[in-house]
Amino acid sequence: MKTVYSDLHGLQHAEAEYIRGKRVASFEMPRRVELVLERVRAVALGPVVGIGDYGLETVGKVHDAEFVTFLSTAWQAWSAENGEIDAFPNAWPPPRASRRATKRPGAELGRFCIDMSSPIMAGTWTAAKAAVDAAVTAVDIVAGGDHAAFALCRPPGHHAGRDYFGGYCFLNNAAAAAQAFRDRGYGKVAVLDIDYHHGNGTQDIFYDRADVLTVSIHADPQVEYPYYSGYAEETGEGAGADFNLNLPLPWGTEYTGYGAALATGLGRIAAHGTEALVVSLGVDTFGGDPISHFKLVSDDFTRIGQAIGGLSLPTVFVMEGGYAVEEIGVNAVNVLSGFKAVA
Amino acid sequence: MKTVYSDLHGLQHAEAEYIRGKRVASFEMPRRVELVLERVRAVALGPVVGIGDYGLETVGKVHDAEFVTFLSTAWQAWSAENGEIDAFPNAWPPPRASRRATKRPGAELGRFCIDMSSPIMAGTWTAAKAAVDAAVTAVDIVAGGDHAAFALCRPPGHHAGRDYFGGYCFLNNAAAAAQAFRDRGYGKVAVLDIDYHHGNGTQDIFYDRADVLTVSIHADPQVEYPYYSGYAEETGEGAGADFNLNLPLPWGTEYTGYGAALATGLGRIAAHGTEALVVSLGVDTFGGDPISHFKLVSDDFTRIGQAIGGLSLPTVFVMEGGYAVEEIGVNAVNVLSGFKAVA
Repeated sequence: MKTVYSDLHGLQHAEAEYIRGKRVASFEMPRRVELVLERVRAVALGPVVGIGDYGLETVGKVHDAEFVTFLSTAWQAWSAENGEIDAFPNAWPPPRASRRATKRPGAELGRFCIDMSSPIMAGTWTAAKAAVDAAVTAVDIVAGGDHAAFALCRPPGHHAGRDYFGGYCFLNNAAAAAQAFRDRGYGKVAVLDIDYHHGNGTQDIFYDRADVLTVSIHADPQVEYPYYSGYAEETGEGAGADFNLNLPLPWGTEYTGYGAALATGLGRIAAHGTEALVVSLGVDTFGGDPISHFKLVSDDFTRIGQAIGGLSLPTVFVMEGGYAVEEIGVNAVNVLSGFKAVA
Repeated sequence: MKTVYSDLHGLQHAEAEYIRGKRVASFEMPRRVELVLERVRAVALGPVVGIGDYGLETVGKVHDAEFVTFLSTAWQAWSAENGEIDAFPNAWPPPRASRRATKRPGAELGRFCIDMSSPIMAGTWTAAKAAVDAAVTAVDIVAGGDHAAFALCRPPGHHAGRDYFGGYCFLNNAAAAAQAFRDRGYGKVAVLDIDYHHGNGTQDIFYDRADVLTVSIHADPQVEYPYYSGYAEETGEGAGADFNLNLPLPWGTEYTGYGAALATGLGRIAAHGTEALVVSLGVDTFGGDPISHFKLVSDDFTRIGQAIGGLSLPTVFVMEGGYAVEEIGVNAVNVLSGFKAVA
């Protein structure tokens, strides 16, 4: 299995985020994917290849134009007003308020950003764009005949919606991969999100579409980020009704419970008549993760990969979360190795 | 003119807020109203009286029940999870997301709070409730026969909407005063907001009501907090259509421009057939204000008071913003003295 990687991800390197009233060192950091890359090489998963440049065509199909323009110019506007410090919003639109554009970068951030964990800096746009390019490159590898490919994306993407960013995510890499599959003639596509956190952005992007089924297995949003979506009753709307499946699980979930939800999700993907699969590969379901509360062990990730491989679908894996940094390489690559063993 | 004051305001004493990417000392502080009180006494404006306890009857008419419950229990929930540190949100509901209640205090803050400037601490609820009581006490003084009264409220209130808080505001004192006038038989009430920042919360609360006219003179929201409301085209809706008047003014406004807008606002209030007036008295229109960009001088505040006094209406002044702390006493009391001179 080929791994697609670009070191442009390193341009996103947040020093701090603000959680539970405190400024803390950012959990999301460049070292995460560097260790995954190291592990890819250590187990000889397959060749590591660079990214193509796909412009903004796919991005423009999964994000609103105003949002893309904002994101690509946000640092310039912010740094002109505030200097070279990481950009955080300080105000958000209240219920029932206007969402009109303002002339202040901090207020514009509030229109588009959903948390205090996702600062924009000088290289954010370049890094985010490169991550999407990695995902689309992986799709082209599969469209070209490979059974599967691994987009080692960073920053992650699954919390980025049509017109918002947050949760360390700026552009939605997995959504772009799904869209790229559609654009290459795959009629029915599915996204399986196995990150610990609900893939709210991916759900949002495809919520009214029947051609891309979205399935997410994640911690109960009543107690876990992103909090405001991820409930089982969110099943899609309009043409997309019944094409979104959320499988929220309680804190403390071990593989027994997890594997059952995974089987349900895979069953739905098979029933969809899926022709190509995108896996949002987060490994923050690991028991040692510092910000999560599931109890998977490293061998469980091999099992997850085997289960996904059982679908025998053209598959692109897209890297998402995982903050037990020293174990992230083993856990992420276990999924890929497990997949490869049965595929 | 009587001044209503309670030292319970001191229970709200934020150490810091987060603006433009930085943690800075809070601009809103107890000393603000202490200096106003000092000035009230220095010019012998009139007696200083304490607050009554009005329970939650009026509060419940201007804020949603779920919001009031949240605010009154937020510190208890937050401190149980996070200890005795000031409570800030770290995530906000994205567009199109569920606004379902969660079980995490930080996420609940995100459902109800619009910025990073308004931390909740142990005494926030008590202080906010006392500020509303001060406003309602002032209404009762006027209902009892006084021509006017001054509610020296803190924390301020005009940014707090039906179901949200922010901008240093938790409960909307001016809205409570307007509602209290209505409840005491005044048929037509008006709120005139002369704070530098748009009175978005007051607008929100009365947006669909014809019985309370809301008029706000403030900095253009395209460049100034609260950013997402305050435009001239926001004129009310439903029964409240044409009962909201926004008069946004550019940065750098001096009294020439300000006085013209004030005359427009007062004309609208007179045309409403207003029987009782509430003035949201912010003095951050002062040229020396550290977070504002108007250019009023201290004597201009006397002129503002005289102009308002010209309406000859039963009037309650409710203290709002003003962050040039050392000048806040002179500027605020100039409005009251100007009013008194002509009333």
